[in-house]
Amino acid sequence: MEIIKVSAHSRSTAVAGAIAGVMRDHGHAEVQAIGASAVNQAIKAVAIARSYLAQDGVDIVCMPEFVEVEIEGQDRTALKLIIEPHK
Amino acid sequence: MEIIKVSAHSRSTAVAGAIAGVMRDHGHAEVQAIGASAVNQAIKAVAIARSYLAQDGVDIVCMPEFVEVEIEGQDRTALKLIIEPHK
Repeated sequence: MEIIKVSAHSRSTAVAGAIAGVMRDHGHAEVQAIGASAVNQAIKAVAIARSYLAQDGVDIVCMPEFVEVEIEGQDRTALKLIIEPHK
Repeated sequence: MEIIKVSAHSRSTAVAGAIAGVMRDHGHAEVQAIGASAVNQAIKAVAIARSYLAQDGVDIVCMPEFVEVEIEGQDRTALKLIIEPHK
């Protein structure tokens, strides 16, 4: 399962569609964002994905955590959102 | 239970402490943020609160949704994070 990477320029509806697709295929998803604008797009995408998946009778929750990633040789702190069905 | 309101200037560790306190007292919490910087602080706070509450053996999840709020006579779209124990 691929990590859904979100940038400041990502459209939140497109990311929401990706989240909904991965949830339908795999039952869980992971989203990664670096920086305030990207994190904002990512969490908006989760809110929108909730409404998409509500049509399937599925609700989702997310668990944010910090992860260290290397981008072009630089260490960066990313925010990872683990997405699961609501139990 | 009071809604925890987060601004762009909120310290995420302080918000995390508030979330952990409300979770301990009430078993759930609500966080509200308007704008990308505030949303970023809010979600970082949830990540930090997860580590605080892990010391009590509790994990939390959040469910983001959009809500319309009125601020100084203006309609604004806020992001609300509903926080629950991880089941």
